[in-house]
Formats: sequence, C-alpha cells, structure tokens
Amino acid sequence: MSKRQLRLGFILHGVGPGWDDWRHPDAQVDASTSLSFYKRQAQAAERGKFDYLFVADSVSINARSSPHYLNRFEPLTILSAMAVVTEHIGLVGTATVTYTEAFNLARQFASLDHISGGRAGWNVVTSWLEGSAANYGKSEHLAHDTRYRLAAEYLDVVKGLWDSWEDDALVRDKESGQFLDPDKLHELNHKGEFLSVKGPLNISRSPQGQPVIFQAGSSEDGRNFAAKSAEAIFTHQENIEEAQSFYADVKARARGFGRDPDQLFIVPGARVIVGSTEEEAQRLHQELAGLVSLENALRALGRSFNDHNFSVYDPDGAFPVEVAVEGYKSNQSASERILELARQGLTLREIALRAATPRSQFTGTPEQIADRFQQWLETRASDGFNLFESLPGQLDVFVDQVVPILQERGIYKTDYTGATFREGLGLDKPVNRYTAARAERSAA
Amino acid sequence: MSKRQLRLGFILHGVGPGWDDWRHPDAQVDASTSLSFYKRQAQAAERGKFDYLFVADSVSINARSSPHYLNRFEPLTILSAMAVVTEHIGLVGTATVTYTEAFNLARQFASLDHISGGRAGWNVVTSWLEGSAANYGKSEHLAHDTRYRLAAEYLDVVKGLWDSWEDDALVRDKESGQFLDPDKLHELNHKGEFLSVKGPLNISRSPQGQPVIFQAGSSEDGRNFAAKSAEAIFTHQENIEEAQSFYADVKARARGFGRDPDQLFIVPGARVIVGSTEEEAQRLHQELAGLVSLENALRALGRSFNDHNFSVYDPDGAFPVEVAVEGYKSNQSASERILELARQGLTLREIALRAATPRSQFTGTPEQIADRFQQWLETRASDGFNLFESLPGQLDVFVDQVVPILQERGIYKTDYTGATFREGLGLDKPVNRYTAARAERSAA
Repeated sequence: MSKRQLRLGFILHGVGPGWDDWRHPDAQVDASTSLSFYKRQAQAAERGKFDYLFVADSVSINARSSPHYLNRFEPLTILSAMAVVTEHIGLVGTATVTYTEAFNLARQFASLDHISGGRAGWNVVTSWLEGSAANYGKSEHLAHDTRYRLAAEYLDVVKGLWDSWEDDALVRDKESGQFLDPDKLHELNHKGEFLSVKGPLNISRSPQGQPVIFQAGSSEDGRNFAAKSAEAIFTHQENIEEAQSFYADVKARARGFGRDPDQLFIVPGARVIVGSTEEEAQRLHQELAGLVSLENALRALGRSFNDHNFSVYDPDGAFPVEVAVEGYKSNQSASERILELARQGLTLREIALRAATPRSQFTGTPEQIADRFQQWLETRASDGFNLFESLPGQLDVFVDQVVPILQERGIYKTDYTGATFREGLGLDKPVNRYTAARAERSAA
Repeated sequence: MSKRQLRLGFILHGVGPGWDDWRHPDAQVDASTSLSFYKRQAQAAERGKFDYLFVADSVSINARSSPHYLNRFEPLTILSAMAVVTEHIGLVGTATVTYTEAFNLARQFASLDHISGGRAGWNVVTSWLEGSAANYGKSEHLAHDTRYRLAAEYLDVVKGLWDSWEDDALVRDKESGQFLDPDKLHELNHKGEFLSVKGPLNISRSPQGQPVIFQAGSSEDGRNFAAKSAEAIFTHQENIEEAQSFYADVKARARGFGRDPDQLFIVPGARVIVGSTEEEAQRLHQELAGLVSLENALRALGRSFNDHNFSVYDPDGAFPVEVAVEGYKSNQSASERILELARQGLTLREIALRAATPRSQFTGTPEQIADRFQQWLETRASDGFNLFESLPGQLDVFVDQVVPILQERGIYKTDYTGATFREGLGLDKPVNRYTAARAERSAA
C-alpha cells in the first residue's frame, strides 16, 4: 500500500506577510501588484508539484494597515490570470460570504473552474475586520455565530447554483437543433433566513462539478463549519502537540457529521526557512526578524484586536489584557494565542515582536524540514501545509532542495495525477443533486 | 495632419449571437466555455490591431434563453485570463450596477487594470431582464429612470474608489522604512441616495488612473448618461442616416455637459460578412439565416419584450402590438426598432426572422467593407465599430483582407501606440481628485 501523501499549498502573497518584509534587500517592493512576480511564484510552485496556489484576502484597509494587506490583487482576477500561466496546480481564492452576492460568487468560481480546466477552490470566509461593513453600506458586522449561520446557508446556495446544470444538460446536437435539454437545467428557488436566490446559474456545470471548499478559521464555530462542509481547512498551529489535538478534534467532528474524515484535509500555515546549515537558517530568521520596528509590531498586534492602538501603552509593561475582550469576539483563535503569551508574563514589546516575526519551527536544513514535515504527517498533526515564502528566493530553495527529499521518501508526489484539482487530491466529485434525485426516482 | 482613425472592438462571444449560429457546420459547439477558443479569437483580434476585446453580459437565464446567453464565462474572470495571452489590446467587460457591490466592482476592475498593465475598460449597464432581480433576493426591478440615477451615483462611487490612492502614494523606501504616504490614501466617505461606501479601495491606483468607461444603451436616459460620463458608447444603428443623427445628438449632448466630444467614441455593433465576391458574401449570409428556425426566431424576439411568448400568435398575421408596452419599458431602443417594422406592415414571421438574422449592411468584398467603414467614419456616423464574428473563420478573413486596406488608406493604425488602452485611444488620463485639490490649494 502506498504511503499517505503530504499536501502542499503555496500562498501567493506579493510583499511578504510580515510588516517590514518588503525592506529585505532582495525584496521586490511592488510585488503585490506585479503580474510577473505572481507568475514566477506560481510557476515555481508548479515546478515543485504543489497541490494548489492560495490567495488570502480582506476587504478593508486604512493608513495603518500592513503593506501586505494594504495593496494587492483581487483573488478571482489574479487567479484567472494564473490559470493561463499554469497547467496542473489548484487555484484557491478567498471570498467573503458577508459582502459578496451569492450569485456573483458562484458564477465567478464556476467560470474560474471552466477557465482552468477544473482547478478552482473557494476559501469561504466571514469578514471580521471592523472597517469592512462600511465599505458595503452596512453599519455593523454580524455577530460571530450569526456569521457562521450565514456562511452555512450561503454555501448551500452556492453549491445549489453549481448544481443548476446537470453534467449532460448541454445536448448541442447540430442535426436535431437541440442545444439544451431543458429538463436538466434547474432553478434553485432558495428562500432562507439570509438569502433568496432563484437561479439557475448562467454557466454550465464546471469540470470539477463543484470547486473544492476550503475554510480558514479554528474557532468552535469554524471547526464545526469545516468538519461539516469543507474539504480543506487552513489553520494556524503553534506546535505539533496542539496540531495533533486540533487534527483529532476536527476529524472526529467530521466523522460525527457522517463524513469520511479522509475527505477533509487539514493544512496549517508554515513559514519555512531553509538554510544549507542550521546556523544559516537561524541567521536568515534573524535577518527577517531584524527588519521589523516596534511601531509596526504594535500595529500588527492591533489587527487581532479590531485595530486597537497599542502604541499608547508602555512597551515594557504588561500586555493590556482588558482590550482583548472586543478582539476576542472578532477573531477568537488569533487573540487566544496572544492572551496565552500574556498569561506567561511576556511584556507588550516581547509579545508584539514575537507575533510580528514568530520563530518558525520550520527553520533548518532541507533534511530537517523534510523530517519535520514527515513527522507532522505521520503523527497526524496535519495532512500537509500552506507555505509562505518567508524570504525572497526561499520558494526556489524549497522546491530544489526539500521537495526531492520528500519525493525520495515516498510521501510526496513526483507528478500531478488526476484530470482536476479535486481528482488530484482524491476528493469525491459531488454528485449533482438533481441527477441523484432522478436516479432515486427511477430505482424506486 | 493625420487622418481621423477608425476604432475597432471585437466582441468575444463564444457561440455566435444568433439563436442557431452554433449549428453552422464549422461552429465549435462548446465555444462559450472554451479557453482555447477565446484565446484564439483574442490573439487574432490583436493581430488585427483591434483596439479592444469586449465581453457582453446578462445575469439571468431560463430554459428558453438563447444558447449565446445561456452558458458563458463571467466577464472579469475571462478578461483576466485574456490579459495574460495578449499584450496590447484593451479588455472591456460588462458589469451591472444593479446587482454588484460597488466596492467589489471597483476593486476587480482596478485589479484587471494592474494585471493587464493598463488595459481595462468597464461597460456600465443597468440590468433590464425580468428574471435578474430574483437571483439577488430582490422582488422587482428598478424603474428605467431610477436605474440611470443609480448608475450615475454608482459610477461616481467607483471613480471615487479608483482615486483612493494618489499616483505617488506608495513611497516604498527601504532606507527610511516608509511604505505608504498616509496623506495620499483617502477615504471616500460617500453617503448618497442608493449607496454608502467608506473606502479607501484596497488596491493602489492602476496604470490608467481609471479604467475606460463604456456605456451600452441608446435610450434618452442612456444617451445622457453616456454623454455625461462615458468614454465610449456601444450602440446599435440600423443604417447610416440613423447613425449620423445619433452621432450628432450624443456629441452635442457631450458638448452640452462641457466635455470635449472627441473624448467620447461612438461605436455601433457591426456583423461583418466578407466574401471574395459580393455573391459569395450574400451566400454566406443566407447560410447563416438558413440556420434559424421560426420557433427560435420567435423566442429571440421575446427577449426584447420581457421574454414574451410569441409562439401563441399566427406567425403570418400582424405583429401583436399590444404586448409591446411592457417591453418598451425595459429595453426601449430594441423594442422601438421592432415596432417600426410592425408599422411597415411586416408579419410576425417576417419580423421574427429578420430580427433573428438581420441583413447586415456590412456584407460584401473586402473593398466594399472598407468603403463602408470609411464612409461611416468620414461622414461622422460613427468613430468605429464593435465587430461580431458572424460566421466561423470570419475574424481571420477580416484581419487578413479588410484590415490591410484600412491601413493603406491611413484610417487605421498599423501598430499599437501608447502605454495603456486609454493612451492608445487618445483619452485623457483622469487627474486624481485629491491630487488636483492639493494642487489648487497650493496655487491659492
């Protein structure tokens, strides 16, 4: 029996995710809106047989936002461009259920799936930044539990729209003149708590049947949503023990919802720093950590707490725990991690700098990184990883030096398999609900 | 002085716009969701130095919809893909103000403009098909005049968001650590009759400053909207006399709004059929017209009248004028043209078949087509044309046989000029409103 395979995603992120990453001597400062930069990264990731490209997102900024958030391509447009410069790699885009019309979202992902020959994935998020509502004529955000109730209904609607057309609805017989079999085109006629959508979608069922569903978020509500409805969950895990516990918990929940837990991939983010020696890797980490100013570290910290201004406190005093309450409401898992550091007695400065450039556990030689990945895979801490490019050039180093080791060990593919992203991951193709109902009727 | 230049757009449309065009022996039946088909057309148009590619749109279908509307790529995603397979040609996408969040629309077009290096255009439409509202949780459409009031406010908001960043807002100085000049990033803080949008947009000002604004629609409201705010108007004109009158009217309105009328291009749609002789061209037209069934011709007619079912009438009787009232409300110019035929005494059958495959005035030899184009340009019936591919292969024939004649006569460019789509058209780059205000303040 072949070994369980590691799954890798690469996060296309323009300038680096750290506040001051762009100041690195080798960093391309206009990377966030540079097509050639994105193209080069996408093709490097495909050379490394990565399973997918991932584009994160947010829908509001202000002058205090991180360079990485401030200015960047919109996910659906840049992924459609990437579809043309790559051949096999999955294309996963983030889009919020809170501020996008469900019909438009279903349609754009279906269109991307057609354009890419079956490689689209949707990372379902519910917006949590305070400023977002005001960009959409709304006065306030939905509460955390309401957002997940909306997400569930919204996902149902989008999947319903993706099923509007049965696979063989398009007859296109020049002889008879029949283009469409009208019995195989369906209205959704959804009327729910939040949404009312008639359908059908104005694009035929796409190569994957339905794009692959990702979810990012590790709160109680987020775990249940992922366990019930997602096919991959993008999470943040501090260490292997926490990751194992998270993994066991989410897979058990999936089983609880009657699902095969192998149909849900758990992929923590990983900032990998590869050096030819352990010392070189540590030096590269310090190079990165040394770029960030206290001012920016405090700003970065603010993001997890509704853009709270931490610069008013003594940086060498205790973390102001009282401000955490509001933040806890909007992004539970990020703020919990920070509160834990505060409980350990770290000062505000220490917490801010550590949060800005965390010491990555994936820092080391190619062998060490491969060992760590294998350990996480084999002890069921994860099914794979979402990689950031920590420093300019690190993606190529990873592809050239770590990937071959993983392949040699038989835990990572040497080429793409399957006609679509979904097939490559070994995920079932969702059966069209109307085709299934017809099959049931004729069996009865 | 160099001659006034003809402007040409090519409408990417998958299967042909006629109901039964897909039945042509050479037609590719899956063209509407075929990336390779779109790519081939886009590259052929670029080879012919077309100014832009144009993607039309609608947001609702039903089982009686035309094959062309039924199933097709979403405009922003397919144009982002086309941006990567072309280098110079403009990329104009249709998007409705009625059912798209303004922040998302502004962002996606800005993203396309960055991806394409300054080639995006937005064709502003207000949805008019009855079924659309129900796909967006709305119970009814807005009235015609209300829609244009919304369109005006919406366009203001989108242009405002495109101005969020001044051109030099991104400092990106590694030495000083300054990424952004916060004084050059602006909130819009719009609160109007229909929209409330705070901003700023989360993508920097794009290469064109603002994508080029198209408008499609020739009603009284549509003309005023275009004359005031658009840079190109896509229209339908039955003959050169009507076209001249429309041209004079819209340019006069533009002057009335204090605009330079040369900053607004008028481009009627043109179904061109090129044959090596006039007889061959006529034969090609008949080949196309012969494909359409009466049933489909009646359906096509229904589209201009809220999907009215015309099959219940005697096809050889008079056109049922009484049903025109409702249609007139939703798509004035299309229904007016059909009512004019009814007044001339044509039967329902004749009107339906003629509306389905109108005899194009652009049918003939390459010399004849070039003559006709030149006549329209020089008598100010239009500034150019939006071309359909009438029959498979006709785009290549046009590029190889008609374009060289136009170039020889000095009325069509032999290569692209200008760094952006806007520059190529000779359109002014909109000055950022905040930069302008600052310049005024320092002059005062």
